[in-house]
Amino acid sequence: MIDLRKPIGVFDSGIGGLTVVKRLVEKLPNERFVYFGDTARVPYGAKSNETVIEYALQDARFLLSRNVKAIVVACNSASSVAIPALRAAFDVPVVGVIEPGARYAARRAPGGKIGVVGTRATIDNRAYSRALASVNPDVKIFEKACPLFVPLAEEGWIDEEVTRLVAEKYLAEFREKELDALILGCTHYPLLAAPIQAAVGENVALVDSGVAAAEATAQELTTLGLRSDFEGEGEREFFVSDVPTKFKEVAERFLGREIEKIRKVDLETLRRR
Amino acid sequence: MIDLRKPIGVFDSGIGGLTVVKRLVEKLPNERFVYFGDTARVPYGAKSNETVIEYALQDARFLLSRNVKAIVVACNSASSVAIPALRAAFDVPVVGVIEPGARYAARRAPGGKIGVVGTRATIDNRAYSRALASVNPDVKIFEKACPLFVPLAEEGWIDEEVTRLVAEKYLAEFREKELDALILGCTHYPLLAAPIQAAVGENVALVDSGVAAAEATAQELTTLGLRSDFEGEGEREFFVSDVPTKFKEVAERFLGREIEKIRKVDLETLRRR
Repeated sequence: MIDLRKPIGVFDSGIGGLTVVKRLVEKLPNERFVYFGDTARVPYGAKSNETVIEYALQDARFLLSRNVKAIVVACNSASSVAIPALRAAFDVPVVGVIEPGARYAARRAPGGKIGVVGTRATIDNRAYSRALASVNPDVKIFEKACPLFVPLAEEGWIDEEVTRLVAEKYLAEFREKELDALILGCTHYPLLAAPIQAAVGENVALVDSGVAAAEATAQELTTLGLRSDFEGEGEREFFVSDVPTKFKEVAERFLGREIEKIRKVDLETLRRR
Repeated sequence: MIDLRKPIGVFDSGIGGLTVVKRLVEKLPNERFVYFGDTARVPYGAKSNETVIEYALQDARFLLSRNVKAIVVACNSASSVAIPALRAAFDVPVVGVIEPGARYAARRAPGGKIGVVGTRATIDNRAYSRALASVNPDVKIFEKACPLFVPLAEEGWIDEEVTRLVAEKYLAEFREKELDALILGCTHYPLLAAPIQAAVGENVALVDSGVAAAEATAQELTTLGLRSDFEGEGEREFFVSDVPTKFKEVAERFLGREIEKIRKVDLETLRRR
């Protein structure tokens, strides 16, 4: 019989995935989590599909070495290209951020207009467009790459004139489209929810794909009978492939809580596995 | 006897180093150049010193496999930590961007006040400060990390209100210091020279460390009797470890000229060398 108290593994190319962990912890407080951020090789977005798939398989293998019962791909680049390879390679359930995000948005804007913002890579490979089209072919989709949002989130410039101006500059074209929903297609973007909301207008529903992924994970675990029977607060462990300066400070802002200990995984070990 | 027409190797973590190649080509038009941009592992700045040294050695080994007579480290992160390891490992002359940049600035501001802007990593490890202090201990140094400048340069947002505002926000504190010179301590920054100049004031001499590195390279080659005797325009070859979307467009903006062909180097090959 499977041990229900085994942890859920979550990986991302860096720290952005911690906004997804934040939502997972809110939704599944009794579950244990093991996070791996591939900070030595961040960002995945600028890399070729083959490279991203190779890295995603390595990241997943590391999580499986920590005995996880499921894997959440909290990285848009990896979610857009590596999910089939991960599902083919491993037995555990694999949940990404893109399909759940697209479903969640389509439910909130039936037959309507949905905007997607993300990094250059996520927008260029049209990951959300394809997912949305397969969920509901009637949805109208508008996409926009917003490369400045990631460093703005990392700087912590939330309530700033610069950030409002950047959001305006990127999102002005969405104003006249009268969107029903806007998918935040990058795990950094929920930190900028306020200026993004102001730029697109209050009537647009912002979709945090971390929320959607947490919902999808809970559902998948329930369906498979894999929910933990533990009643306390689940343990959370954090691993990275490199520890950059100020990492803890930024990571805690993304996670929304303190991180006791961050352990480093050797990249060579990861490759040899 | 050494073949003087062997190329000069230049490496960087990505495309930023192309602004250094631009200056090298201006200064040494008859030399051949081989560029390697480690785009699959960019940026180096966020990585630990050990990782950066490991990558720099791999990058240099690739250039040496292309038979280069000298190596220019056109990457601030690698220049700040990997030069001793590179010099110990290889026989060819190795020129970085930091020491030449510091020397160049110190010559222009004898006993004066010098500002340094760069990525978080370059500023945190105080690379330019240390180099400046060893060139001239009387110089007063003021440093500032400007993480937004890289994506602004890559977006090509040069003559924009947002960029002026970001430059103001980062550099306002330098205004009252009455700097003599400001070192652009990141290879992306020369693209933003105009808004940076406007933010610090017209009296501050901007130091492009690409210009300084090109001068140092020319001098080193002359001293060692390694200058090419070729009289035509030297051949230029470009290699990267990954080819991201829009790479050619951005790369050409950085280099200031057309790039005919960009070849991809397999990362596994690089590691095994």
